[in-house]
Amino acid sequence: MKKDDIVSLASRAKRVSEKLAVLTTAVKNRALTKMAGALTRRKKLILRENEKDVASAKRRGLSSALTNRLHLDEKKLRGMAESILSISKLSDPIGKILSERRRPNGLLIQKVRVPLGVILIIYESRPNVTADCMALCLKSGNGVILKGGKEAFYSNRAIYHVLEEAAVEAGIPEGFSEFVPADHEAVRALLGLSGVIDLVIPRGGEELIREVARISKIPVIKHFKGVCHVFVDRKADFEKAAAIVLNAKVQNPAVCNAMETLLVDEKVAVVFLPRVAQALLEKGVEIRGCETTRRILPDVKSAEEEDWYAEYLDLILAVRVVKDLDQAIGHIQTYGSHHSDAIVTEDKKAARRFTKEVDSACVFVNCSTRFSDGGEFGMGAEMGISTDKLHARGPMGLEELTSYKYVVLGNGQIRR
Amino acid sequence: MKKDDIVSLASRAKRVSEKLAVLTTAVKNRALTKMAGALTRRKKLILRENEKDVASAKRRGLSSALTNRLHLDEKKLRGMAESILSISKLSDPIGKILSERRRPNGLLIQKVRVPLGVILIIYESRPNVTADCMALCLKSGNGVILKGGKEAFYSNRAIYHVLEEAAVEAGIPEGFSEFVPADHEAVRALLGLSGVIDLVIPRGGEELIREVARISKIPVIKHFKGVCHVFVDRKADFEKAAAIVLNAKVQNPAVCNAMETLLVDEKVAVVFLPRVAQALLEKGVEIRGCETTRRILPDVKSAEEEDWYAEYLDLILAVRVVKDLDQAIGHIQTYGSHHSDAIVTEDKKAARRFTKEVDSACVFVNCSTRFSDGGEFGMGAEMGISTDKLHARGPMGLEELTSYKYVVLGNGQIRR
Repeated sequence: MKKDDIVSLASRAKRVSEKLAVLTTAVKNRALTKMAGALTRRKKLILRENEKDVASAKRRGLSSALTNRLHLDEKKLRGMAESILSISKLSDPIGKILSERRRPNGLLIQKVRVPLGVILIIYESRPNVTADCMALCLKSGNGVILKGGKEAFYSNRAIYHVLEEAAVEAGIPEGFSEFVPADHEAVRALLGLSGVIDLVIPRGGEELIREVARISKIPVIKHFKGVCHVFVDRKADFEKAAAIVLNAKVQNPAVCNAMETLLVDEKVAVVFLPRVAQALLEKGVEIRGCETTRRILPDVKSAEEEDWYAEYLDLILAVRVVKDLDQAIGHIQTYGSHHSDAIVTEDKKAARRFTKEVDSACVFVNCSTRFSDGGEFGMGAEMGISTDKLHARGPMGLEELTSYKYVVLGNGQIRR
Repeated sequence: MKKDDIVSLASRAKRVSEKLAVLTTAVKNRALTKMAGALTRRKKLILRENEKDVASAKRRGLSSALTNRLHLDEKKLRGMAESILSISKLSDPIGKILSERRRPNGLLIQKVRVPLGVILIIYESRPNVTADCMALCLKSGNGVILKGGKEAFYSNRAIYHVLEEAAVEAGIPEGFSEFVPADHEAVRALLGLSGVIDLVIPRGGEELIREVARISKIPVIKHFKGVCHVFVDRKADFEKAAAIVLNAKVQNPAVCNAMETLLVDEKVAVVFLPRVAQALLEKGVEIRGCETTRRILPDVKSAEEEDWYAEYLDLILAVRVVKDLDQAIGHIQTYGSHHSDAIVTEDKKAARRFTKEVDSACVFVNCSTRFSDGGEFGMGAEMGISTDKLHARGPMGLEELTSYKYVVLGNGQIRR
């Protein structure tokens, strides 16, 4: 797309967003219901378009993990429709009074939730992101500009058209979402439009996200990577610990909330490690251990310093035996990415210290890091996950796509 | 300061901030009470240091408005102490559970408020900012790096030393706040320390703020300027309207929440304008009017296009007669700075449309824009005012200096 076309597309999105900001909850929810229905009703079209992306991925020799992420079927479409329906059932954040204060001079000061305006999402791979983002932005009264990856172009375009059409038929202003083809120049032009676009959320590989953060003139919310830890404390229940470690590593190793490093308290390492290692090896996991780990598990490879920083996104696990809770927290603060970290322990005091002192977006006690997800958190879906501290942290749902304004109601008050 | 010294100062602030994050409310409040006491007890020292700044301002021929902003007296010191005390009385935001959800699988998902970390404030002129920021950051568990203006160096340094000493005596870790002398290179070095400093808030003239926003690698929250409007609707109570207009323009014209443009509905302009103009002229205000205004008030100067964008910060007022509420809103959206805008009307529907459609941080009904202030909003004081939409908007108090984390409590749950 030409730069002028991009500018007019974004300006149109801005104008439309003013109308989205004042839509009633009923209109938005009805549209979301229609959108969910359209997704299943028009599955043939979407699956046919998806086949083109999958065929092209195979032709280009993409790994089967990546091809699987692209591939859509009826079950995945139903999942997308269910996400949209669950978003329609969440309470509308817009117009909500967040706090209200009556001042001694009689002024009533209300903090009221409002949409951000226009949100640009730049994403790779999974086509469900298209549906999730359209639904979340509509419900939160924001315009959205969708820039998906080249590899999912046909799928994303089909989903976009089906959902946009259904929403407009249900009374949503045309252009509530805009679709931008994968095109490097278009992205660069979009990222210069501060004052028109209010927020950029990049989702994908670390390289993509660093590039967006570097060139954007618009505020960016992001996470670069997920180097997630599970710490098995000396007071851990081994049954729970083994299940959580296995789940966090193998249930879906290619995602940002999968565990990359396992930390085990030295008091229990000799008993716990052989037990969990067996299960991990059976699932095809390669273990890279510290010296102590290798004394307990002599057959595993040695972990180097860079392994502690690594986001493998694969069936590889770094394992380190630590002296105590303090050293575990220290390791996470030093090498982690402030994304999602878990402790397994029956000791409430250790759990409390871990959740207080580990400075990550999500801290888990006795459950898998894989729960770090908007859907699992009850947000219906997510626009992304943030490891930033400003504005939004962790999975971003409806509330995280809003701002607020102060409305001050008086009766002639002046300042003395 | 040398770049190495700046880096170690900021790193020290980061380390100390970890201790500040876990201070109890009681310890913080006791320290704030001591700080307020120290400010009045050691007034002689502070006023003597302040005299140096005032003398130097006079030598350099600063305007009397600027010299007045610098000048401290017992009354101003008492006001600063009262701000600190009122912050000690506000509820502690840290550790507060913002929301809590039990998921069908039994997971308890808590959103918990945490400090941001280290905040850098870059400010000009008024020395009370030093005290306000130290108190707000301490209560919200953040470290703070203070970089005040050269013109207030002696005052800021004295206030800093008195407050830091009192806080440390009361059990706050040394270095909870850091004082950086005015030095261009030091600021540049600080603004590069993303990952160490978590947020920058620039306060001062538009030029300073643009420069900080341009070179900072750290997130910045800011407002560039305050082009604030009062709109007198056709259903306005003239008595209230006249009082509000006068207050918004003359009570303190040099600040960002002072009115710069008056909009009057054409239905009432002939009656209202002569009445308010008389009062404004008596206060020495220069009026620059649109054509219709000049038909009603033939002696006033003509307003040019650039007057609608102007932040005079002086006894000058642009006046425009508008057709109706729509045109008033349109004018504010086109020329305003999204800071603070007021409507005067007895018509509830007009008030509601104005508060919904004017996209400003603070919208006022029947009161002065001068209330756009953390203290007036009941926040004790403010770290600044934001016209950004991300993270914080309007006056920034304790809550706006925090982030949150998710704490997820399970009992062995894994993801299916």
